[in-house]
Amino acid sequence: MDQPWSTLPARKQRRLERAAAFADGPILDPARIGDALAALIEPGDRVALEGDNQKQADFLSRALAALDPAAVHDLHLLISTLGRPEHLDLFERGIARKVDFSFAGPQSLRVAQLLEDGKLEIGAIYTYVELYARMFVDLTPQVALVCAEKADRHGNLYTGANTEDTPTIVEATAFRHGVVVAQVNEIVDELPRVDIPASWVDFVVEADRPFAVEPLFTRDPRHIGELQILMGMMIIRGIYERHGVTALNHGIGFDTAAVELLLPTYGESLGLKGKICRNWALNPHPTLIPAIESGWVESVHCFGSEVGMEEYIRARPDIFFVGRDGSLRSNRVFCQLAGQYGVDLFIGSTLQMDADGNSSTVTLGRLAGFGGAPNMGHDPRGRRHASDAWLSLMTSKAPVARGRKLVVQTVETFKSGGVPAFVETLDAVEVGRNSGMPVAPVMIYGDDVSHVVTEEGIAYLYKAEGGEERRAAIAAVAGATGIGRRAEAKRTADLRSRGIVAYPEDLGVSRLQANRSLLAARSIDDLVDWSGGLYRPPARFRSW
Amino acid sequence: MDQPWSTLPARKQRRLERAAAFADGPILDPARIGDALAALIEPGDRVALEGDNQKQADFLSRALAALDPAAVHDLHLLISTLGRPEHLDLFERGIARKVDFSFAGPQSLRVAQLLEDGKLEIGAIYTYVELYARMFVDLTPQVALVCAEKADRHGNLYTGANTEDTPTIVEATAFRHGVVVAQVNEIVDELPRVDIPASWVDFVVEADRPFAVEPLFTRDPRHIGELQILMGMMIIRGIYERHGVTALNHGIGFDTAAVELLLPTYGESLGLKGKICRNWALNPHPTLIPAIESGWVESVHCFGSEVGMEEYIRARPDIFFVGRDGSLRSNRVFCQLAGQYGVDLFIGSTLQMDADGNSSTVTLGRLAGFGGAPNMGHDPRGRRHASDAWLSLMTSKAPVARGRKLVVQTVETFKSGGVPAFVETLDAVEVGRNSGMPVAPVMIYGDDVSHVVTEEGIAYLYKAEGGEERRAAIAAVAGATGIGRRAEAKRTADLRSRGIVAYPEDLGVSRLQANRSLLAARSIDDLVDWSGGLYRPPARFRSW
Repeated sequence: MDQPWSTLPARKQRRLERAAAFADGPILDPARIGDALAALIEPGDRVALEGDNQKQADFLSRALAALDPAAVHDLHLLISTLGRPEHLDLFERGIARKVDFSFAGPQSLRVAQLLEDGKLEIGAIYTYVELYARMFVDLTPQVALVCAEKADRHGNLYTGANTEDTPTIVEATAFRHGVVVAQVNEIVDELPRVDIPASWVDFVVEADRPFAVEPLFTRDPRHIGELQILMGMMIIRGIYERHGVTALNHGIGFDTAAVELLLPTYGESLGLKGKICRNWALNPHPTLIPAIESGWVESVHCFGSEVGMEEYIRARPDIFFVGRDGSLRSNRVFCQLAGQYGVDLFIGSTLQMDADGNSSTVTLGRLAGFGGAPNMGHDPRGRRHASDAWLSLMTSKAPVARGRKLVVQTVETFKSGGVPAFVETLDAVEVGRNSGMPVAPVMIYGDDVSHVVTEEGIAYLYKAEGGEERRAAIAAVAGATGIGRRAEAKRTADLRSRGIVAYPEDLGVSRLQANRSLLAARSIDDLVDWSGGLYRPPARFRSW
Repeated sequence: MDQPWSTLPARKQRRLERAAAFADGPILDPARIGDALAALIEPGDRVALEGDNQKQADFLSRALAALDPAAVHDLHLLISTLGRPEHLDLFERGIARKVDFSFAGPQSLRVAQLLEDGKLEIGAIYTYVELYARMFVDLTPQVALVCAEKADRHGNLYTGANTEDTPTIVEATAFRHGVVVAQVNEIVDELPRVDIPASWVDFVVEADRPFAVEPLFTRDPRHIGELQILMGMMIIRGIYERHGVTALNHGIGFDTAAVELLLPTYGESLGLKGKICRNWALNPHPTLIPAIESGWVESVHCFGSEVGMEEYIRARPDIFFVGRDGSLRSNRVFCQLAGQYGVDLFIGSTLQMDADGNSSTVTLGRLAGFGGAPNMGHDPRGRRHASDAWLSLMTSKAPVARGRKLVVQTVETFKSGGVPAFVETLDAVEVGRNSGMPVAPVMIYGDDVSHVVTEEGIAYLYKAEGGEERRAAIAAVAGATGIGRRAEAKRTADLRSRGIVAYPEDLGVSRLQANRSLLAARSIDDLVDWSGGLYRPPARFRSW
C-alpha cells in the first residue's frame, strides 16, 4: 500500500518501472514507443500533449493515436492547439474523451462534429496562458508529451528557437509527479545549450522525422492593399505618434504587416525613428525586417519563432533574445507577461465588430477558440506602473484615476464579398449558443478597446463619455454598413471637433499617398533582399 | 570595432574576460568578489539585484555596496524588494542612482528621504510581475546578481524550496547578453536537482553565509480575535459556499489565517469538505496545516516557500509541487499566472477603504509599493474560460455578458486606536502626490472588488447597480465610521432584501459562536502538533 500523502510519487514510480523495459536509461526505443506510452499512461489520465501555436509533438501524437483503445482510453487531453488530424482521431477512437484547449483552427469543424456525436467533451476553451495556469491548479498533467530539437544522453533538452510552451508544460508536470516524455529530432552527446534540465525529464525519444512546425507569422507583402496602407498611415500618425508608443505588440494580419512596412518609409518621413516602436513583444515577423534594418527596433521578445527566420535572427543578436549558441530564445509565458504588463499597446485585426465594439474572429459553424489575443487585447487592471503612453489615456480627474493600455482593433468596414464587418450581433453569440458554451466566444470586449481603426478613420473610444457616445463614435467610422449608416452628420462633426473621431484629413494623412509604393517591401523577395539573403522563406512563399 | 548588430555579445565578452582573473572557470573567488563585480559592472548599467519578497542575494548586495563609487556609479537598480539597509547604501554612496522596484517595506522611509535629497531617482513602482515583464522589454539587465541554495562546478544551480524569482531574472538577463552571477550557500559535486542550467549562468560564488530569507507568511493563531473569526465564518458561508469556490488565493493577514483555521471546524460542520477550497495558489502558510491534515486540500502551488515548512512539505508530496529531490518547487511567475487566470477568488485584507471601495495599505509618509496583491486582486479581463464560481457573478443578460473573478476585500471598520478604516480619501492619494507619483498608489481598485467583508457583514458589490448603489452597500457594512453613518435604515433594508448586503443573521452565522474555541489551532504550538512535529517554526514564533 502507498504511504498516505505519497500516493502520487508512488503512482509515478510504478509507471516508470513499467516503461523501463522499453528504454535504455532515459532513452526510449522509438520502435517501441507505442508500448512505452501504453506502459506510462493509465485510463482517465490527464495528458498534456504539446500542440502549440507553431510546433507540434507529432511523433508522440501519432503514436498515441495508434494505441489500443481497450488498454488506453478516456484520456483527458490538455492541448493548446487541436491542430492535427490525429488529435481528433484520439476522440474518434475513444482513446481520449475530454479536452481542454485554446485553439482548433483547421480542425474546428471536426471538433463540432465529434461534440455533436458525443465522442468529445469540452472541459473549457481558453486562451493559451489560461490553460497553462490551470495546469498549476486543478489540471495538473499525469503525463506530458512534449517536443524539443535535441536531447543529450542524460535527458537534458535543447528546445532551440521554438521554445514556445515546452518549459511551462514540463514544469507543471514534473513538479507534480507527472511523467515527462520528450520527442527530439536528434539525440547528441553535447547540446548547444541546455534549455530544460534532465532533472525534470523522464524519457526522451528520437522521432522518425523533425517535429512539425508551421510558418504562421509570415505575411506576403504582395497581398497588402491600399486600404490597409491608409489604415497603417492613420495608425502611425493618429495612435503611435500621438500617444508616444514605444513598447508594443502586433497581432498577425495584413493590417499590422502594413504598419511594419510603413515605418521605414512613411514613419521615417515624419521623423519618428527612435521616438516610437522601439521595443516589441511579438514573433519574428519577416515584415519587421525592413524596420530592423533601418534602425527602428531596439529589441524583440518572442512567443515562438518563425520558419525561415533562423539565420537572420542569429545574425542580429543585438535585436533578438538569443542564447549562447546564437539561436533564438522564445518563451510564450514570458512574452505574454511582457505583452500584458510590459508594453503599452496591442493592435490586432478582427473580422466582425458589433455596435459596442465587441469583436470576434469566429465565423458561423466554427468553434476556433481564442489563442493568445485576449491576453494582449485587454486593459490589464493589475498594472500599477505608469508610462507616458499609458497615462495619455487617463481622462478622469478623480484622485484615484489611472491610465490604460492602448487596445487597438483594426477592421475594414466590409469583408470580401461585400459582407459588412460591422453587425448587430456577433456570429460568436450564435456559435456559442449552438455549442453550449456558457458565454459567447468574444475575442476582444468592447469595453477593453481604446481605439477602433477602419479605412474611414479612427474612433478614440477611450475619450467617449458613456455607452451612447461610444456607439456614435463607432458608427462614425463604420462606413456604409448598417451600423455606419446610423451615424448622424451633426453628431459626427461634434465628435470630430472633440477629437473622439478622426478622419484621415483630421490627422494630416493623405489618401492619395496611400499606395503600395509606400511599402518598404512589396514582396517576399524584397524581404529577402532587405535581410541580405539571411531570411529563407519557406517554399510556399517563394515565387522564384 | 564590434561587428554591427553584435555589439551586445561583444560587450558581454569583454566583461567576462575582465572578470576571468578572479575566477576558476565559472567559480568566482569569494575573497575577490568586489574585484569581480567591479570588472563585470560598468557605470550606468541596469543591474537586477535579487531581492525577492522572501530571499535576498545579500552576499552580493553587500559586496556591491562596498565597491568604489569612483569606479562603479550611476547604476540603474532593478529590484523587487528594496528591503535591506545596503540596498539604500548603494544610493547614499552614489553607486546607484535610479531604481525600479515593487516593494520597499521597512526601508520606505529611507527611500522617501533619499528621494528628497536627490540621491535616488525612481523609474517606476510596480507589482512584482510587472517589473519582470519590463525586463523582457526595455529594462533588460546588463548584469543580474541572484541567489540559489547550491551550485555544481559547472555552474548549474539548485534553487531548492525558495525558487521565487531566480529563473525569471536569469532568463531575462542570460538571453539578452547580460552577465549572470549567482551566490550560493554551497558549491557541491552533485546537485539534488538542476533548477537552472549552467548554460544560462556565467559565474557562481560561495557566499560567506546562507542567503537571508524572512518568514513572512507565518501568522501566530494567538493573535486572531473574535471579529476575525466572525468575518471568517461569514466568508465561508456567504462567499465560499454560496459561490462554490474551489480554486483560490489567500493573501497574508490574520483575516485569511482565521478562514484557514475555521475550515476543519466550522467548514466541516457545514459539510463543505471537498466542495470548497480544494486547489490553492499561495505560499505554504503554516495556518493551512490543519486544513491539509483534515483532508481539505488537494493541491498548493507556491510563489515562494516559508521558513520552517521544509520538512512538512517534503512529507506531503501529494499536496505540494515538489521536485525529484522532495523539496518544494515554487515559482512566482507561474503562481501569479495560476492566481490570475487559473483560480476564481482572491481575498486579502486592507487597512483603508474609501466610499467607492478603493483600498490601500499605504500609510502616510511611507511609499511601500505594491508587491503582488494587485495582480491577484483584479478581474482578469483576458480570461475566456468559465467556471461555476466565475459564472455566478454574471449579472447581465446581454448576449456578450461574461463572468467575473471574485475579488474579496476584508477590513475591520476601525483600526487599532479607534481610527476608522473607511475614509473619504485614501492616504494613498496624498502620499502619491507628495512623492510625485503620476497616479495614486491604490492597491485594489473599487471597480475590481466584488465583495467587501467587515465585522458588520458582506457587501455583494458585483450585484449593485451603478455607483450610487455600490456606495450605499459599502456604507451598510461600514459600521460606526463616518462613511457607515451615511447608511439609511430603509435603504439598507432594501439592499438586504435584494441580497446586495448580508448581515451575519442573514447568512445563518451566529455571532455567539464566533470565538477562539472554533479555531482548529490556537497557537503555533498547536500547528506544530497538527503537523506531527514536521513544522519547525522559526525561533521568534516559539513560546516554549
